[in-house]
Amino acid sequence: MNYIGIDVGGSHVSSGLVDGHSIVAKTHMQVSDNSSLGALLPELEDTVRALLKGAANQNCHGVILSFCGIVDGLAGRIVETNGRYHDAPEIDFPEWARSRFGLPLRIENDARAALLGEHVAGAAQDFDDVVMVVLGTGVGGAAMIDGKLLCGKHSQAGCLLGHFGSAVPGRLCSCGNLGCIEAEASTAVLDSVSREHPNYSASSLRNLQRLTFKDLFSQADAGDSCARDIRERCIQVWAAATVSWIHAYDPELVVFGGGVMSAADAILPIIQSYVERHAWTPWGKVVVRKAALGNDASLFAGPALLAHAQ
Amino acid sequence: MNYIGIDVGGSHVSSGLVDGHSIVAKTHMQVSDNSSLGALLPELEDTVRALLKGAANQNCHGVILSFCGIVDGLAGRIVETNGRYHDAPEIDFPEWARSRFGLPLRIENDARAALLGEHVAGAAQDFDDVVMVVLGTGVGGAAMIDGKLLCGKHSQAGCLLGHFGSAVPGRLCSCGNLGCIEAEASTAVLDSVSREHPNYSASSLRNLQRLTFKDLFSQADAGDSCARDIRERCIQVWAAATVSWIHAYDPELVVFGGGVMSAADAILPIIQSYVERHAWTPWGKVVVRKAALGNDASLFAGPALLAHAQ
Repeated sequence: MNYIGIDVGGSHVSSGLVDGHSIVAKTHMQVSDNSSLGALLPELEDTVRALLKGAANQNCHGVILSFCGIVDGLAGRIVETNGRYHDAPEIDFPEWARSRFGLPLRIENDARAALLGEHVAGAAQDFDDVVMVVLGTGVGGAAMIDGKLLCGKHSQAGCLLGHFGSAVPGRLCSCGNLGCIEAEASTAVLDSVSREHPNYSASSLRNLQRLTFKDLFSQADAGDSCARDIRERCIQVWAAATVSWIHAYDPELVVFGGGVMSAADAILPIIQSYVERHAWTPWGKVVVRKAALGNDASLFAGPALLAHAQ
Repeated sequence: MNYIGIDVGGSHVSSGLVDGHSIVAKTHMQVSDNSSLGALLPELEDTVRALLKGAANQNCHGVILSFCGIVDGLAGRIVETNGRYHDAPEIDFPEWARSRFGLPLRIENDARAALLGEHVAGAAQDFDDVVMVVLGTGVGGAAMIDGKLLCGKHSQAGCLLGHFGSAVPGRLCSCGNLGCIEAEASTAVLDSVSREHPNYSASSLRNLQRLTFKDLFSQADAGDSCARDIRERCIQVWAAATVSWIHAYDPELVVFGGGVMSAADAILPIIQSYVERHAWTPWGKVVVRKAALGNDASLFAGPALLAHAQ
């Protein structure tokens, strides 16, 4: 199966021509101004045309678009953009693809598309009941039950993994809630969490700005006690959250993706062990695994999204 | 529609003949020894026969059975009993009803059945996307998406509302997890939570054994500061949990049932207000409401459970 995949993130747009389980051609566009998605469409149209030339001698099945916000996949529209791409909910993407390329287009939330991609061609190939967690700047995710994405009435079910509560009372989250997992343990809050540590003023973290988990883990490995405490706390929050996600959605597999997974070896064994000790799964053990397809995962969602496209 | 409803709890078996939205006849059996469900079957058979006599001049559609444990409704069997009724997973209930009464039987978890009942005839009649929370001894519940119960691969999805994490690290829960909502704020842990309060030794709670929320609320109303603190803390835990459940399942309505709801007026307005301030629901506001059918809710699940029964 041959199709065009587009992934729209907060600071990039990736596009690829995908054939089965391989990306035949791929382009990456940095987005410096993410206030309007309409403004990016002409360049995106050129990109898709160029990719389609590579598919000229084959039948192209359609276009899939994954987006960093709440998406109503059935209705084919973006519902909520979290302050970016303000015009996105007004754009009729299926109409755009039909009029420009004569192709059907399916749209989905990026974490849901990544889960579909991992299910088609990655770490979740042998499972139909899966929670995918994306530890990037925030904590995102998606849930699949019996091979189908969980969506819910307003397309929010399974997508707000980072916004389950983890502390009462807890830190104010960007979503307006208190004590969210994302507000307690994510790249987005690492600076403020660090500054609140009692030993921060004596810590090597003080010399770093826009702290990442990569920085945190290096400083922890180098012996900084403040960095060690925060690393341990964040992993504990994610491990406890994993049990909540298992209890919420009853999966057989939890797949972790996102930039933080560059330190997967230091994180996932602790989570797997915590899950084995604390998840209530009388039927057996949930597998905890790193995502296989990295940032390309959502581009592989085509077969699932386009299966019923006209 | 005319059918027999049976509800098997830890310390009771209720049975009724239900006709449409009304219970025509009902019996209540106290269970002193809940080690075996097989031992109760002869008495239950007599009860059902007596109820069927009342339905003699009408066509009885079947039997529904709700059970206080994990149930695989599709397979028609009990999966996990939490230490009670050890023989329940071995009993073939559909075969029992077919051979004894010539009727089809459908079985479901009690909180799921209560949600179906509230959906058919109670507080959730106008909604198809609902979370039902049962604040009884523990914290149970169920989730409905687009009019269908959420079940998951092992029948655990939506049922473990009380076992989402609420604190990291947190109190050891009976399920083996740490920091569950049920381990932080439920009747089951009220004694131990109270004893840990710094002012417990000077509190009126000290004179009470097997503390209930009814006791706690009376002492709080009478001015006991320890009782007030614990009441406030428990309601905060439930309010934060409600936001997590909303983020997990994307409902339009959260229905609260169970014994603790005798104090619904002191609890639900605080939860409703918290949800309005903190739940991330750009589409609108989630309704928070008390269950309408009390302990009988599960008996009303017949039309939903028997719809496709042969």
